[in-house]
Amino acid sequence: MTVVAETARFCADVLTCAELPDGDTVYDDAHPLWQKFVAAGLANWWLPERYGGRAFSLGDSVEISARLSYHDPGFAFSAFLPILASRMLEFFGSAELAQRYLPELSGTGSFCATLGSEARAGSELTNTETTFRRHGDSLVINGHKQFSTNLAFARFCLVLARNADDERDFAVILVPGEAEGFRVEQRWRMSGLLGTGTYAATFTDCAVPAGNALNGNGIRVLEVGLNGSRILMAAMAIGMSRRIRDLSMEYAATKRLGGAPLSRNAVFGARMGQLEMELETIKSQCDRAARDYDELYLGARPAEKFLGQGVLKSAVVAKMHSGQVGWKIASAASEGFGGLGYTEQHEIQRLMRAMRHISIVEGSDDVLRDLIYGRYVRRASRRG
Amino acid sequence: MTVVAETARFCADVLTCAELPDGDTVYDDAHPLWQKFVAAGLANWWLPERYGGRAFSLGDSVEISARLSYHDPGFAFSAFLPILASRMLEFFGSAELAQRYLPELSGTGSFCATLGSEARAGSELTNTETTFRRHGDSLVINGHKQFSTNLAFARFCLVLARNADDERDFAVILVPGEAEGFRVEQRWRMSGLLGTGTYAATFTDCAVPAGNALNGNGIRVLEVGLNGSRILMAAMAIGMSRRIRDLSMEYAATKRLGGAPLSRNAVFGARMGQLEMELETIKSQCDRAARDYDELYLGARPAEKFLGQGVLKSAVVAKMHSGQVGWKIASAASEGFGGLGYTEQHEIQRLMRAMRHISIVEGSDDVLRDLIYGRYVRRASRRG
Amino acid sequence: MTVVAETARFCADVLTCAELPDGDTVYDDAHPLWQKFVAAGLANWWLPERYGGRAFSLGDSVEISARLSYHDPGFAFSAFLPILASRMLEFFGSAELAQRYLPELSGTGSFCATLGSEARAGSELTNTETTFRRHGDSLVINGHKQFSTNLAFARFCLVLARNADDERDFAVILVPGEAEGFRVEQRWRMSGLLGTGTYAATFTDCAVPAGNALNGNGIRVLEVGLNGSRILMAAMAIGMSRRIRDLSMEYAATKRLGGAPLSRNAVFGARMGQLEMELETIKSQCDRAARDYDELYLGARPAEKFLGQGVLKSAVVAKMHSGQVGWKIASAASEGFGGLGYTEQHEIQRLMRAMRHISIVEGSDDVLRDLIYGRYVRRASRRG
Amino acid sequence: MTVVAETARFCADVLTCAELPDGDTVYDDAHPLWQKFVAAGLANWWLPERYGGRAFSLGDSVEISARLSYHDPGFAFSAFLPILASRMLEFFGSAELAQRYLPELSGTGSFCATLGSEARAGSELTNTETTFRRHGDSLVINGHKQFSTNLAFARFCLVLARNADDERDFAVILVPGEAEGFRVEQRWRMSGLLGTGTYAATFTDCAVPAGNALNGNGIRVLEVGLNGSRILMAAMAIGMSRRIRDLSMEYAATKRLGGAPLSRNAVFGARMGQLEMELETIKSQCDRAARDYDELYLGARPAEKFLGQGVLKSAVVAKMHSGQVGWKIASAASEGFGGLGYTEQHEIQRLMRAMRHISIVEGSDDVLRDLIYGRYVRRASRRG
Repeated sequence: MTVVAETARFCADVLTCAELPDGDTVYDDAHPLWQKFVAAGLANWWLPERYGGRAFSLGDSVEISARLSYHDPGFAFSAFLPILASRMLEFFGSAELAQRYLPELSGTGSFCATLGSEARAGSELTNTETTFRRHGDSLVINGHKQFSTNLAFARFCLVLARNADDERDFAVILVPGEAEGFRVEQRWRMSGLLGTGTYAATFTDCAVPAGNALNGNGIRVLEVGLNGSRILMAAMAIGMSRRIRDLSMEYAATKRLGGAPLSRNAVFGARMGQLEMELETIKSQCDRAARDYDELYLGARPAEKFLGQGVLKSAVVAKMHSGQVGWKIASAASEGFGGLGYTEQHEIQRLMRAMRHISIVEGSDDVLRDLIYGRYVRRASRRG
Repeated sequence: MTVVAETARFCADVLTCAELPDGDTVYDDAHPLWQKFVAAGLANWWLPERYGGRAFSLGDSVEISARLSYHDPGFAFSAFLPILASRMLEFFGSAELAQRYLPELSGTGSFCATLGSEARAGSELTNTETTFRRHGDSLVINGHKQFSTNLAFARFCLVLARNADDERDFAVILVPGEAEGFRVEQRWRMSGLLGTGTYAATFTDCAVPAGNALNGNGIRVLEVGLNGSRILMAAMAIGMSRRIRDLSMEYAATKRLGGAPLSRNAVFGARMGQLEMELETIKSQCDRAARDYDELYLGARPAEKFLGQGVLKSAVVAKMHSGQVGWKIASAASEGFGGLGYTEQHEIQRLMRAMRHISIVEGSDDVLRDLIYGRYVRRASRRG
Repeated sequence: MTVVAETARFCADVLTCAELPDGDTVYDDAHPLWQKFVAAGLANWWLPERYGGRAFSLGDSVEISARLSYHDPGFAFSAFLPILASRMLEFFGSAELAQRYLPELSGTGSFCATLGSEARAGSELTNTETTFRRHGDSLVINGHKQFSTNLAFARFCLVLARNADDERDFAVILVPGEAEGFRVEQRWRMSGLLGTGTYAATFTDCAVPAGNALNGNGIRVLEVGLNGSRILMAAMAIGMSRRIRDLSMEYAATKRLGGAPLSRNAVFGARMGQLEMELETIKSQCDRAARDYDELYLGARPAEKFLGQGVLKSAVVAKMHSGQVGWKIASAASEGFGGLGYTEQHEIQRLMRAMRHISIVEGSDDVLRDLIYGRYVRRASRRG
Repeated sequence: MTVVAETARFCADVLTCAELPDGDTVYDDAHPLWQKFVAAGLANWWLPERYGGRAFSLGDSVEISARLSYHDPGFAFSAFLPILASRMLEFFGSAELAQRYLPELSGTGSFCATLGSEARAGSELTNTETTFRRHGDSLVINGHKQFSTNLAFARFCLVLARNADDERDFAVILVPGEAEGFRVEQRWRMSGLLGTGTYAATFTDCAVPAGNALNGNGIRVLEVGLNGSRILMAAMAIGMSRRIRDLSMEYAATKRLGGAPLSRNAVFGARMGQLEMELETIKSQCDRAARDYDELYLGARPAEKFLGQGVLKSAVVAKMHSGQVGWKIASAASEGFGGLGYTEQHEIQRLMRAMRHISIVEGSDDVLRDLIYGRYVRRASRRG
């Protein structure tokens, strides 16, 4: 059975029967849905076989993210986001560090998290104010981080920090969940993706072994990590758009307009035709980015290659395109269910809020347009 | 002091200090905010002087709706929606009926409601399935109505029903809140406009005096009533867009980007310039519609003139334009507050949900495009 | 007969029968259409009665511009653009200067022109490189100007220039058409608005009397002049959108789709309903701007008031909104005439190109967004 | 040297030096550019080796279409459109027919054409009014066809006709250019793609051997042919968007705004970043469609497989997406060159007109939305 078939079965057997999450739900390792996900062998599905993982490709992951998001985008996000931290560790951690922390992710399906964004730095990572300082064999971390998904129940997290003694030196450092001086603060009440647990955290003289720092410039390392999670965020729009299409078709089968089923109305048909067209372009771009990713990943010296490249253009494009087009789809569809579509009884509102997430998180479009201009237009133009 | 100044004072003194509504809030006549609104002399501000009202024009009402919506769109909607029922009664009720029910709205600031939409009829009012039947001097009503704001605490409501004995005959009938056979059912959990109470209702052999039927074809009567409420719904976008602009400017004053305040960033400035431009066009269209309305209202035989016209083109256009442009404004702005803008801590999410309401309620854009095409393009083209 | 009726008659009697302009047409004072326009008493219709003009308001002018543009946007633009120069002269020229040059515009229907834009300055007027210098009682002008409509046959033109001796001093100076040292250069081949003659020009030691300088800062003076022409440019979109609607309805009356006339197709109807809605908002904003303009113009000391205000917000908004929405209308409609709509046989291509003009000329949207942000958002926000 | 490199060389050596086409240019087999294209071995590059062709894949063809369109979209369209007719002949013509007509296309680089659209049928091919009737061993064709590119100098054309004796039977029939009763009529003056020759034609008792009919239902056969040409039309947007980007960067390098080069302006950068992002999604969708196409083409029994499928979903999506996004790109960019960008001196106007073509020809978006809805949404939904 392919992984996509396994995911389909999990969706059919588990997700379709599950209650929808509300603001109090947290998809942590104690949550029944997560435990079934682990039992199905799907937790952290991308981990390499040498760490006990199933080594599914980004290509497969796109469809997994889409399928889970069809049913529950919050569950999907909680489930795939650990790829951000685990892949940084896999690529840039020492062999010993990776060996200590990664196998557990496959085995027990535990979580890991990433701490990048800060209140003042926002999307400009070079403004990061969290610092680390060497003390003998330790690194001592101080600072405050704003948004970190899965943090409260993560076995370890990766923190982006600036060298207190060299403001141009950044590192990504592994902090075990139980480290002293590391405190998870409030959970954010997010607008959508209910069930996903996102937290702020503070580091107060939090000391970890010096070997916990990953190799490579911290900002670049984080950029590499984001390639995977951005593609899978983009893939959420595939699943949610399919869901929106199917909800619309269900509604149109029962609703009548002008004496005929809505499904035969030309305006409705045109909207669905446009949706389906747009959905295809989202899928094509996600697949394209996943192919680029997998090609690098399966090639020689992937960590080095990825580091050389930093941001993968097609991955950023996938996230932007999914966010923009997904929002267009959700906006148009949200007007198509009458008054009922404005109530919380109807799923469309929940989906619309979840869709909004894509364009806001892991780099807003303003930030990414600037990045693309700087790296792929302006630089190319100067060379040309 | 002008009414706009009075409203400004109420906003400053009361609304700015009030807690934001949550899903449990209901702005009924017992709610402290409403009582202060009544005390400020603002309740049902449009009622004619002969019923003890203050007779403010639609032109003034546009600004009142905008000011209230700046602070709390749910309060604004609850406060102005009674114009829909009260104006139908004022225009098309017998002198006696109007005299019995309207003065109380001015005096004690009580509510009235309208019951139009049904589950199957949706926006096609000619599919209305609620019926009335003459029994001696009574009209007996049966049926189920879906969305009615303020209904649970309304002194009376106006119900659109079809003649059980003549399927092409529709009437709008006044039903007192305490009528037997009239039962308010569940309150809907709406996606936005928290605080606004919207309800479903059932009529089971509910008998009212025959004189409670308003004069004129029921669908036409309802169309006339909607002119006022559509203009004031459109005006909500003025207030909410101003709020979004001000929130953005506050954020930009503190946030830094590229070493300078965000307020000096050219992309941010371009977005604000576009917002301000769009906001002006919303305002201009609302003012235009209000002027058209007031001209008819203050002219000779307004009820007759309005009935001859039915839907006021500029009012429909105002609602569509506000809904479309307001959504564009809210969508763009919602990406501009970083991750914080995706949390419920931040007002932008609340505003975005409230903005969505405009395009969905009182005729979706699909319905209104069709209406405009049929009445103002196709008919004109055949004449031409 | 009202001026709108006069215009309607001119359109019916003259424009509908006229051949469409091609790239060689120039609407100069020798052109038969223009001579008929003069004969109909419509040339420069806005000139005050004290200069022999008919003193029609901006409100009327909006409808005149719309009507002419319905038939021929190039003719409309050629006809109303002189308001830019004539109003600057009327407001800010000495009584003697105005008396010498304005009456002729009413009498013989001659043209005047404005020279603002330059190759390097573009839309940033403060970068103007054309200079003037005092020599005794003369001003000597040197420089190159890029786009000036009607220039080749204008009796006089108004030139924006910088003081060669004080780079922060700008003046608008009247140069008679026959002045020595003033040379009209090539006519531009414009993409749309065929018939409109637009030219570049060079000033080489061109000397004019010092009294030919208008009072007031040159950039501010030009801003005031642009208020009128921007409103009338915006009004072009009214006429062109009406034309597009009517062409679409004509096509739909004959074309069949799915066994019925296209005019009964729901998708076509939805598009027309949306067009009509958008057209109304264009009209409302133009009317709003014209009302603001007329209020200032008919009030006390208009020149002073206008100078105090500079750019009229509603006028800028009208031009931006018309340009953006008109382009949306033209783009959507251009797909609605099958393959024929891509040929030059069909008017839609001509209209689309004419529509494009609105957003590009007299300040692109980028420039105007920045202006609105700076003057109406940012400044207000600092005050607030 | 790869075909893309060959194309690049042809572009560099020939197209960059060539004069831009005007309304009188026709890219026929006598045109010098075409002769150089033939000499470079590029004419009809997709023809199979068994007909003397070079058998380049659709994947390669996407890049060829893009490269040629970068320099001259009219040349590109003239050059790739023969794939429509030649592939129908290759798939569905008898071995003998294909052998008689295809080798010449490779050898001398001659043209072939397709006649589908008619005045009344428009995009509804089932309304085709051109008929064929069997007369002994001949088929006799009568009717009028509207738009056919390359027709006047095509060695043969393929005509869609309805069986005069069975209105549900359609055939695609090969007509040699010199056939009696076949007359090419006027060349259309197209809005863009100057250089491309597009013609109307009439058939008056035009008799051809019965063996000239292709196998399979004519409408389905045409659908199959359109898959290739739609993908290559979509690919035109890649080349044109790259050109627009490069023109914008050139302009921004010389133009100054606010005291700095425009290339450092944040609004300009954001627009370019968005353009680049959108361009990537166009490329990804074209590549995806080409991959789908090549997979079928290189697999077993491609003609049969293609006929079973008819319209290739990803190909239709590519054309729609390119047309919509390309238009967005061209519209935005056309405002970015100041007044110069509105003149015919500047290429942007020419590019904008060429871009418009994509959404209008070979099925407007209205038609294709309906097709997608019917085949991929509605049918799937009924199965589901």
